[in-house]
Amino acid sequence: MLRIITQIAEATTELQRISDRTHNQQTEGKEVAVREILKTVQTEGDQALLDYTEKFDQLTLTVDQLRVTGSELDAAYQQVSKELIDAIALARKKIEAFHRQRTPKSWVEFGDNQTVLGKRYTAVDRAGLYVPGGRASYPSTVLMNAVPATVAGVSRRVMVTPPGADGKVNSAVLVAAQEAGIEEIYRVGGAHAIGALAYGTETIPKVDVITGPGNIYVTLAKKMVYGTVGIDSLAGPSEVLIIADHNANPVYVAADLLAQAEHDPMAAAILLTTEEKLAQEVQKQVEVQLENHPRRTLTEKAIAHYGVAVVVKSLTEAAKLSNLFAPEHLELEVEDPWEMLNLIRHAGAIFMGHSTPEAVGDYLAGPNHTLPTSGAARYASALGVETFMKHSSLIEYSHTALDDVSQAIQTLAQAEGLHSHSESVRLRMSKQYDQYKC
Amino acid sequence: MLRIITQIAEATTELQRISDRTHNQQTEGKEVAVREILKTVQTEGDQALLDYTEKFDQLTLTVDQLRVTGSELDAAYQQVSKELIDAIALARKKIEAFHRQRTPKSWVEFGDNQTVLGKRYTAVDRAGLYVPGGRASYPSTVLMNAVPATVAGVSRRVMVTPPGADGKVNSAVLVAAQEAGIEEIYRVGGAHAIGALAYGTETIPKVDVITGPGNIYVTLAKKMVYGTVGIDSLAGPSEVLIIADHNANPVYVAADLLAQAEHDPMAAAILLTTEEKLAQEVQKQVEVQLENHPRRTLTEKAIAHYGVAVVVKSLTEAAKLSNLFAPEHLELEVEDPWEMLNLIRHAGAIFMGHSTPEAVGDYLAGPNHTLPTSGAARYASALGVETFMKHSSLIEYSHTALDDVSQAIQTLAQAEGLHSHSESVRLRMSKQYDQYKC
Repeated sequence: MLRIITQIAEATTELQRISDRTHNQQTEGKEVAVREILKTVQTEGDQALLDYTEKFDQLTLTVDQLRVTGSELDAAYQQVSKELIDAIALARKKIEAFHRQRTPKSWVEFGDNQTVLGKRYTAVDRAGLYVPGGRASYPSTVLMNAVPATVAGVSRRVMVTPPGADGKVNSAVLVAAQEAGIEEIYRVGGAHAIGALAYGTETIPKVDVITGPGNIYVTLAKKMVYGTVGIDSLAGPSEVLIIADHNANPVYVAADLLAQAEHDPMAAAILLTTEEKLAQEVQKQVEVQLENHPRRTLTEKAIAHYGVAVVVKSLTEAAKLSNLFAPEHLELEVEDPWEMLNLIRHAGAIFMGHSTPEAVGDYLAGPNHTLPTSGAARYASALGVETFMKHSSLIEYSHTALDDVSQAIQTLAQAEGLHSHSESVRLRMSKQYDQYKC
Repeated sequence: MLRIITQIAEATTELQRISDRTHNQQTEGKEVAVREILKTVQTEGDQALLDYTEKFDQLTLTVDQLRVTGSELDAAYQQVSKELIDAIALARKKIEAFHRQRTPKSWVEFGDNQTVLGKRYTAVDRAGLYVPGGRASYPSTVLMNAVPATVAGVSRRVMVTPPGADGKVNSAVLVAAQEAGIEEIYRVGGAHAIGALAYGTETIPKVDVITGPGNIYVTLAKKMVYGTVGIDSLAGPSEVLIIADHNANPVYVAADLLAQAEHDPMAAAILLTTEEKLAQEVQKQVEVQLENHPRRTLTEKAIAHYGVAVVVKSLTEAAKLSNLFAPEHLELEVEDPWEMLNLIRHAGAIFMGHSTPEAVGDYLAGPNHTLPTSGAARYASALGVETFMKHSSLIEYSHTALDDVSQAIQTLAQAEGLHSHSESVRLRMSKQYDQYKC
């Protein structure tokens, strides 16, 4: 049952509790285990991957079996429907089109006295994409991670994903990978797969950036290897916050809340509405739509623990609560969503109006569905082409230009006690060393 | 003494050793200590800050003394020379001008059937800037962190820095902070100050992003709180790699190597040159310039452990070695640096030609001096305005636009076993619920 709260103080506390549901997890025991796994992968390489696959996936593999073969890649197309292949291809096309817009471009500016300043953008050399197994083995995850890497121009793109009980990788995942331009795929998952990407093994290359969601072990491993490699973010359970006014349709709102709750028993589904009647109607509709839900138990659990409908006095109050929560997904099911937008400060993605369910963005509108969770939208953004690129600052000074600022640099360097910083400028200004070459 | 290596295999091993000098540090004991400190700050707030300041800085403070007062801020201007104030103001101006270029801008695109897609950029609400004490208490650090936060439009900007033995904060640091628009400054440093910024205390506000360098305890604390707040990067000891040809001046090269080495006994200073004679001359010049160096012991130590001159066969070979190292700072002291640039893949900042010592970028050319270290330039970039901003994806679909992709979304959602994702679209397409409002 979706609870309804009408007191703002209670709502604030409740949203804080939901927001903190992962921050307050005790993970120290798991951290010890993950640290051990990473160390073992670093020292033992492939053998460690085989051992952990045996232990955690109950599957005996040889080194040669780690990589998904060309014939498995080909066969995947036979194992999914034509309709699904087309839907994956359509999604890829639309995701790529969006990600190609406003990608970072190198630039230089010419200043006085022949100075040049700029930024030079380049792709990382190698990217590793983690795709979860089991309940969360989704072709859409593959597209949302692989397409930006391809658009960025990453020359080596590698995927790891845990094998099923039969040793196979989900066919739809394999099709999505190929549609997005990834053919180097290893059937290995868990914290040990993150170790393989971070340190490299005999079979799996060390990469520069690791992206993709995973369970708590994968997330802890990503946090530990951050600094050795780059990572996209630390993904927590998914969340939606819907702001709805008198104009909203309770059937749609209920479906959107459930579409979040069905991901995970820890998923959060929050409604803020100015209409008490709407809250009640949504509560009813949630029950109706849960009736024959194939993931009913899991979804009910999420709604019970991390679902809530809050009746607010105004859309301004709703925006304030939303900004405190900083949701991953924000739906504005209100009469004028563009006006409401001015009140919003933090959200991973914002879905405008009544005909934009989160699902359209999850799959194919174009923007990335890998978004900051657990309040991280206060400071973080969607995964994007930038995740797979970096820039170098460019600086060129002429002798004259350096002369102009030489005193200021020496003053600053001396104030900081950095003698050679000062000397590196002073010596260049001294005629004595001007032509001092070998 | 700066070692000279002429064998490429030895050079590769040596550069790898230098690159890994921080990755292989055993930090587990320190991690336990830092975790304990963070937990104590989270539960005890201000009192923990006072206790740790007493313990680590041997200084007894009261809660009221944590914040630097208005009169201290005013007095700072009396305690530094006019020349230094002017140099700080000049640096601020030039750093700001560079950072104002190409800042992220919000955008939307209108598509078929009244769809709208875009990205909406906003600043974080609160930023916390860490400024180290002691040897590394630099006004330039303040400018390089504070100016981008100000340009981004962060409304609350807070600085923390450990107090000296007399309880005071470095006057030049206080001047730089004010020039860059920061007036909320707390005299507290170390891992506990990071905890204060991440969780908030009675006196210090919880922030959204923490930036700035620090010792190993500060860096470990930043890594641990990452996910609760955003961070800029995990800074390691500084490094320069200089590529020099027959055109280079050994006096300049030696000064630039020493300008890196003088930062820290773990700083790295690497020369790659096509000219064996230049390597020998630089080796001599390093000794000459070390003679009356005020930080001679520390600087010699860095040169001995993490300094090296490598004689390479060609600039192409130099570029390959440089790309493997992915240096924080790269100086191209060669005849045609812009041609050489095409061979470079990874570097935090690139200094072009003979009149661009790293010091010009460290202080006032404009680009940020907070750069990726320890090989992180393979995937990371300079601190910038982006560090203090984030974006929300914007998606708006019309009923017609949703209708167009409705089947594809349902196909994908069903393939992923996400019933309500599918339903959230199907129900919107069904006339039955069209006008179903409260």
